[in-house]
Amino acid sequence: MPDSYRLYYWPQIQGRGEFVRLALEAGGADYIDVARRSGKRGGGSAAIMKVLEGGDPHAPFAPPFLELDGELISQTANILAFLGPRLGLVPADERSRRRVQQLQLLVADFVAEAHDTHHPLATSLRYEEQKPAARKNAKAFTTLRMTKYLGYFERVLARNPDGAQWLVGDSLSYVDLSLFQVVAGLRFAFPSAMKKLEPAYPHVVALAARVAALPRIARYLKSKRRIAFNQSGIFRHYAELDR
Amino acid sequence: MPDSYRLYYWPQIQGRGEFVRLALEAGGADYIDVARRSGKRGGGSAAIMKVLEGGDPHAPFAPPFLELDGELISQTANILAFLGPRLGLVPADERSRRRVQQLQLLVADFVAEAHDTHHPLATSLRYEEQKPAARKNAKAFTTLRMTKYLGYFERVLARNPDGAQWLVGDSLSYVDLSLFQVVAGLRFAFPSAMKKLEPAYPHVVALAARVAALPRIARYLKSKRRIAFNQSGIFRHYAELDR
Repeated sequence: MPDSYRLYYWPQIQGRGEFVRLALEAGGADYIDVARRSGKRGGGSAAIMKVLEGGDPHAPFAPPFLELDGELISQTANILAFLGPRLGLVPADERSRRRVQQLQLLVADFVAEAHDTHHPLATSLRYEEQKPAARKNAKAFTTLRMTKYLGYFERVLARNPDGAQWLVGDSLSYVDLSLFQVVAGLRFAFPSAMKKLEPAYPHVVALAARVAALPRIARYLKSKRRIAFNQSGIFRHYAELDR
Repeated sequence: MPDSYRLYYWPQIQGRGEFVRLALEAGGADYIDVARRSGKRGGGSAAIMKVLEGGDPHAPFAPPFLELDGELISQTANILAFLGPRLGLVPADERSRRRVQQLQLLVADFVAEAHDTHHPLATSLRYEEQKPAARKNAKAFTTLRMTKYLGYFERVLARNPDGAQWLVGDSLSYVDLSLFQVVAGLRFAFPSAMKKLEPAYPHVVALAARVAALPRIARYLKSKRRIAFNQSGIFRHYAELDR
């Protein structure tokens, strides 16, 4: 029997770890969400710090990271590229796999920009210390960047030669799960902007609903394993940033 | 005979295209830098826009992208993951390849933060419209973030079980080329900060020198194919942002 996957990510937020969790859940993988265990059981943030600072020559820069058979794999998109073939979450051919990965890297760019709306000056400063800058950044994000990214994903779906059900080919891949998560995050952070924008991106909206309805994902979203969105994560709701 | 690689990137700047150029050059690849050709010969930025807006179902979101055998491959790290095995710029085993790619994705994060020092509010605004915010962002970048990233790469080199010559294993890989490019960019953008910081990162500094001295890279850096750093690229020098 193969080892369980051990996922390491900050236990209080969805964050970038959520993209990995969604893949593990959709793939029906046997995994341990290490830092969500109690400190007594070797969990908590201490479990993450122990790996980061333990002197392992291959210690990652930051979570999320995955441990399997003594290997430490980090960077969200890189973890998903590893999991995809193992969990049946990518097509079989190499070209399609490259397309899934390049869309995943675009999701990463989109997520980084969503984060920077509330921390445009420095991650070392609190939101309250950079509110005027955050307001300007969020204005550009909600008016120019969200439309650019969502418009691109809409076109990818609309033009998919295999139909608009999934982003690549004719079956679910990990980037579909990630785009669902981005839509969910944007709805939490920018409900007003999303309400106005969503009608222009019907394929993206339908994809998000399709993912949410996948039996394993539907069960996961209702479970305690799904952490609620909150004001410590990547996607945060500040009314003043939501046009 | 196989097709030439066709690289598409904005012709006036090094930008993210440079990470791909360095791999093509170090690997001795036969490639065409499409947009650097004249408009008459099908080049210029128009060549890029034609692909982005031409209705191809797999058109990329943005350059750089590579065209080969009718396939369009985008996202810098994804292009490098594709080129690595073809150009002899990754080790043979899958674990090492994942490590090279995860370090490349960390380089991408580092580069994005370097860019944001001069554009913290919005890429749609000019630098002159966001100078006070840029100064705050650059202060955090040069004091906290550069040290964190450079310190991490220094440790990866110092702890490499195969020696500190290269980041992964005992031979050159594409991420070594990319780290050289980051060091070169930081020296251009933040000469004062780098002068103070470099002594603390001897392995990183030595790696950058080792890459620059590779015969193919040395020839490339002296050629007209290497675009000079300038004030339109990712790495820009504004004295007021350099502590």
